[in-house]
Amino acid sequence: MTAPQNPLLNDRDVDFLLYEVLDAPRLCALPYFADHARETFDLYLQSCRRFAREVLFPTYRPVDASPPRFEQGGVTVHPALKQVLRPMVDLGVLTAPRPAAVGGQQLPLVVATLAGAYLMAANLSACGYLGLTTGAAHLIETFGDDTLKATFMTRLYAGEWTGTMALTEPQAGSSLADVQARAATTAAGHYLVRGSKIFISGGDHDLTENIVHLTLARIEGAPPGIKGVSLFAVPKRRPERWPDGGRLVPNDVEVAGMIHKIGWRGLPSLAMSFGEKGDCHGYLVGKPHQGIAAMFQMMNEARIMVGANAAATASVAYQEALGYALVRPQGRRLGARDPEAPQVPIVEHADVRRMLLRQKAIVEGSLALVATTALLADLAAHAADAEERERAQRLLDLLTPITKTFPAEKGFESNALALQVHGGYGYSSEYLPEAWLRDQKLNTIHEGTTGIQGLDLLGRKAVAGGGAALMALGAEIQRAIGRAQRAGVEPAWGERLGAAMALVGDVTAHLAEAGMRGDVERMLRHSADYLELASTVVVAWQWLAMAAAAREGLAAGASPAVFYEGKLCAAQYWFSTELPRVEALAALCRSGEDSYARMRPEWF
Amino acid sequence: MTAPQNPLLNDRDVDFLLYEVLDAPRLCALPYFADHARETFDLYLQSCRRFAREVLFPTYRPVDASPPRFEQGGVTVHPALKQVLRPMVDLGVLTAPRPAAVGGQQLPLVVATLAGAYLMAANLSACGYLGLTTGAAHLIETFGDDTLKATFMTRLYAGEWTGTMALTEPQAGSSLADVQARAATTAAGHYLVRGSKIFISGGDHDLTENIVHLTLARIEGAPPGIKGVSLFAVPKRRPERWPDGGRLVPNDVEVAGMIHKIGWRGLPSLAMSFGEKGDCHGYLVGKPHQGIAAMFQMMNEARIMVGANAAATASVAYQEALGYALVRPQGRRLGARDPEAPQVPIVEHADVRRMLLRQKAIVEGSLALVATTALLADLAAHAADAEERERAQRLLDLLTPITKTFPAEKGFESNALALQVHGGYGYSSEYLPEAWLRDQKLNTIHEGTTGIQGLDLLGRKAVAGGGAALMALGAEIQRAIGRAQRAGVEPAWGERLGAAMALVGDVTAHLAEAGMRGDVERMLRHSADYLELASTVVVAWQWLAMAAAAREGLAAGASPAVFYEGKLCAAQYWFSTELPRVEALAALCRSGEDSYARMRPEWF
Repeated sequence: MTAPQNPLLNDRDVDFLLYEVLDAPRLCALPYFADHARETFDLYLQSCRRFAREVLFPTYRPVDASPPRFEQGGVTVHPALKQVLRPMVDLGVLTAPRPAAVGGQQLPLVVATLAGAYLMAANLSACGYLGLTTGAAHLIETFGDDTLKATFMTRLYAGEWTGTMALTEPQAGSSLADVQARAATTAAGHYLVRGSKIFISGGDHDLTENIVHLTLARIEGAPPGIKGVSLFAVPKRRPERWPDGGRLVPNDVEVAGMIHKIGWRGLPSLAMSFGEKGDCHGYLVGKPHQGIAAMFQMMNEARIMVGANAAATASVAYQEALGYALVRPQGRRLGARDPEAPQVPIVEHADVRRMLLRQKAIVEGSLALVATTALLADLAAHAADAEERERAQRLLDLLTPITKTFPAEKGFESNALALQVHGGYGYSSEYLPEAWLRDQKLNTIHEGTTGIQGLDLLGRKAVAGGGAALMALGAEIQRAIGRAQRAGVEPAWGERLGAAMALVGDVTAHLAEAGMRGDVERMLRHSADYLELASTVVVAWQWLAMAAAAREGLAAGASPAVFYEGKLCAAQYWFSTELPRVEALAALCRSGEDSYARMRPEWF
Repeated sequence: MTAPQNPLLNDRDVDFLLYEVLDAPRLCALPYFADHARETFDLYLQSCRRFAREVLFPTYRPVDASPPRFEQGGVTVHPALKQVLRPMVDLGVLTAPRPAAVGGQQLPLVVATLAGAYLMAANLSACGYLGLTTGAAHLIETFGDDTLKATFMTRLYAGEWTGTMALTEPQAGSSLADVQARAATTAAGHYLVRGSKIFISGGDHDLTENIVHLTLARIEGAPPGIKGVSLFAVPKRRPERWPDGGRLVPNDVEVAGMIHKIGWRGLPSLAMSFGEKGDCHGYLVGKPHQGIAAMFQMMNEARIMVGANAAATASVAYQEALGYALVRPQGRRLGARDPEAPQVPIVEHADVRRMLLRQKAIVEGSLALVATTALLADLAAHAADAEERERAQRLLDLLTPITKTFPAEKGFESNALALQVHGGYGYSSEYLPEAWLRDQKLNTIHEGTTGIQGLDLLGRKAVAGGGAALMALGAEIQRAIGRAQRAGVEPAWGERLGAAMALVGDVTAHLAEAGMRGDVERMLRHSADYLELASTVVVAWQWLAMAAAAREGLAAGASPAVFYEGKLCAAQYWFSTELPRVEALAALCRSGEDSYARMRPEWF
């Protein structure tokens, strides 16, 4: 009668993705990954899995129940976080995919990302600190000079200090062109930074002695708009004598207030003020006025990480709902006539199975998409020839807004279904699904809202280079269709996917034409619908690839057969329930239906 | 720059529904409503509106922030609730639609429901006490004998005591056939009740001196299953000498525990135990073993109330998001080239308008549906001839699961959009949308989950009497199409609605055939999709009726024109964005697609 312990993610599914769907070990033929093999992948996965289940997951509920406190100018976080952060650093979470030269293991991102998903499923907030820290370090690794690397990057990668992204300002929100923080040059070479930032995750805490804020600000005299924004490393405490002399002294970075987030409650979100006393030193990262381009490296990594966060958060809730449905008795099968027969577990009810299968389709589809995207990032950086790197980069750019958004939007629906499966109990904080539902909602907002991802996908990625990325996606999809045919997957699925992808191409061409005519409003009006259309097709691609690998596994007599049957069932669900929605979405995009274009503020 | 005060609901919309779409004053031609006229409707509406805005809404945040406490055997609720309950009783909330004979005003339910929606939007929990109380009183009014009426009904309608529904048991959940609470006969005529109940809303509190639990239990020797369940009034305290002698003494009803609900945080949800000391007196309501049928009167009223709760909760959040979007500056219009031009309010961005228009379509579509259903309840009870009463009852039965579910399911999406419009601020408890999102989630669970509503709609309502209700709905829809044609509404909308309704008929016939062949599993497999299909069509009907009334208003030069333009825009949105989804849904229902039918527990 007791549900088994929540596994966070299904191990068999993760192995399936890595070794049967994506064949990740092929990466080991590339020089960068030459020291690796399936064995080293498994070792890393296994250590993350075990830590996530045994150490990290038990901290989730206490951390959620006691959010950070902001008192006497500083932020105190739950003490359990201090106990888990060091072991996570020791696992290699900050550096696993980075080069050996900076202390990394040169592990493929696809492996690191799936292993990291266990940690995210166990405790999203704890992972937040490390994700921000590795992103900040990577920015300095790419754009910083040797002094910045020695001072900041090494300490960030070592987990001695943590990092943040200090982009958003109260008056600007998503509009980075409106950043107003200022940076004044000094004779000593550093800048004096002054300004207000908001929603700075991990902007202050008592976990490490220092925090490095990767901060957007305008150098005096910079051009207005997006082209006048520069990137700075602004530490909470700076060495008394730059770069590394003396003790750390306060750097005039203050917490102005704390936002009471409804989820991710281990990771404080803060309003910060820089340079109120005129003594906030900032160190330029990269070239002046090119801060946005640099920041986008971190942002793009963060967007894939959001996809992983979302998939992991949907996964842990799905596993919880599944465990509950298997043991909770209630009611009888349809048509059962004997009121004294024992009740059946709710998984026996068709509608409960529907809710679980929908969650499975969303969770495993999301995870496959995240893994595929991470593999493309590996290839974009390390493939043997330039053409392959370029192809992978194009696909990576195209998929990033989808990988960021689909798991977040559909994951929210999936998390709501996990709560629903629990019935009245799901509506209480005695059970965990409500907490994961709260956590999930952030993923449609941070690192670029869903609205912004839609504009990015249609306005930039899909039409860049004459639609080159979309053509590359079409080729990938054709390859998956071929594999599915050879494996003996239901032929109608491949046909429907091919037709749906053709539809995406048609719609894109139609909309691009409006753009080329100069009617950008018309082109982008249905970008949210276009994002949903493209996401539905891209996830169908993932499901076809998984169906092919499942058929191959069944044919090879691989084990367990029930796992493959479940995969084929979920694929069937996606092809019969979700993919048919593309017709109406495509028609809507193409029609340019103008209800919200016409709608005036005073008409609401 | 400051958003205007949240109006909770749009007054113009409420008046539009009552007087332009539904012509509610025509009810005053019926004897039961003969003392009423538009003036009395307006008076009641106006007093509820004012109270909701000025008194009730300011209590929402403090009540949400300080949930009930369970200490020393009793439950203490927020003191503000005590201050608002008496004035709400004085407004007539408990009795307005009831007959003068029991202290009511004989006000149409359609008026009472829309007026009540303001109160729900202001503070859902406070309304919860009164909804349960009037439902309990009405049960006793219908099924109780004179002693029960004198003892319980009068005090409930007077708001001296409150009522509850004590149906659910821990081991049975939604499966009422498995109720195990027992009732032993006594020589004195009362029963001795013993058993455990869970999720009893308002099961204990410190607002009134007594609470009457309408409780399901089995009389000793009753048949097993649903046909052996009886209904009892079980007070928290009973008169020392039944029926009304002496002081109130404890009736062996104890709070066993409190569920920490994530929303509705002014209304405690409790585990209760009855008769642990063998001294819990219960009084039979109605006939032995007919408790379920009686309870369904309360349940059906409660289901319409859930629809109103959901519409109101989506409305208040939509109004908040709209107010925010009108004043929050961020970014510039597409193609704006001057980075130093001032930022525009976010309502200027197409995707924000999309999110607002979608909310408007859901909120106003839900409210129209709730109002239409309430009007049918008025006609079913009070229409002049039996045929009309029967027709209205059929439609009411058919619409009840849709009215319960659509506002709850789509309202949750709408509430999530209201949060999304607020961006990062929406993710904080400094802003209210997150609280309404929490509140809304209960509505897909209580009073029958969405899964149960789907089974009710397809398995009972749609096929009852050879599809008579569906035919009556078809006739209503044809009437709306005729009105729209005459008013000059875009003819394609009416055509599409007619075709969609025909599709619902076809699908129903197809599925009913499977049922008649004895394949009930096949018939009901896609009941969730069927519910969504039917809901989408029914709400399109509401939008066509509103479009017709809007065109009529514009033609008559009624004011303000902007209101009618907004209605037509939202109608356009529904017809172009939502209604086209019916094709895929109908195909899915008809195909009998079997993914979750085939799926086995071990395949997940």
